[in-house]
Amino acid sequence: MDQRISFVTLAVRDLEASRRFYLDGLGWQAEMDVPGEVIMLMAGEHLVLSLWDRAAFEAEVGPINDTLSAGGVPPLTLAHNVATREEVEEILALAGRLGADVTGPQEREWGGYTGYFADPDGFHWEIAWNPGPIGQRVLP
Amino acid sequence: MDQRISFVTLAVRDLEASRRFYLDGLGWQAEMDVPGEVIMLMAGEHLVLSLWDRAAFEAEVGPINDTLSAGGVPPLTLAHNVATREEVEEILALAGRLGADVTGPQEREWGGYTGYFADPDGFHWEIAWNPGPIGQRVLP
Repeated sequence: MDQRISFVTLAVRDLEASRRFYLDGLGWQAEMDVPGEVIMLMAGEHLVLSLWDRAAFEAEVGPINDTLSAGGVPPLTLAHNVATREEVEEILALAGRLGADVTGPQEREWGGYTGYFADPDGFHWEIAWNPGPIGQRVLP
Repeated sequence: MDQRISFVTLAVRDLEASRRFYLDGLGWQAEMDVPGEVIMLMAGEHLVLSLWDRAAFEAEVGPINDTLSAGGVPPLTLAHNVATREEVEEILALAGRLGADVTGPQEREWGGYTGYFADPDGFHWEIAWNPGPIGQRVLP
């Protein structure tokens, strides 16, 4: 098994809310769009971000172990790295205008400058300026 | 904000268990490895899979909303697409030999052949043969 992720699939509670955020709000383009079921978006040369209706996800993968009413965050983040500190601020400001909860940005002890926004399901995106080698390596 | 995922970061309970599974078991190579803190692995040309100690994750991102004792799965899957049905079976068999819980593989109504294995934290990887256009697009 070689080191590759082909799809990142997130279970979403309200696909229309996801649509408003990612497509209408961020202006992303769907590669596949089946209302009420799934929205797939290219998120890299060979990478798809799939937003899948939670009930369909649970029917195939199993019951989800989160606590919907207890607050808190899902056990993952997705990062979107950018080339400048200014882009970090611009993207977080955009997410805030779209109604997302935003945290930061702030300086990180490892030398970066990052902040988070939460999508409609609470999935956290880290917007990151990382001047180190691994941060440069993920830039397009 | 363009359509890019740079890092997928998973909160893990026991980084040594992750190390045994991903590095020793699957034979993946770490790009960065800080025992007790984080293991980062390239998972695409511009994509990093980061396995981050759960306590450190929660200190930065916030308390996780999962229910550790209740069973069930995290609200995401990662897919690894392959070019043949045989590779699906081979990889799931490998994961099973490494002690992972394996489900399937089975035919899917959309024309694919996929199954899942769970990593030491219950994160589900879907090993997928998808003969459709989007399945072909994610292959290297």
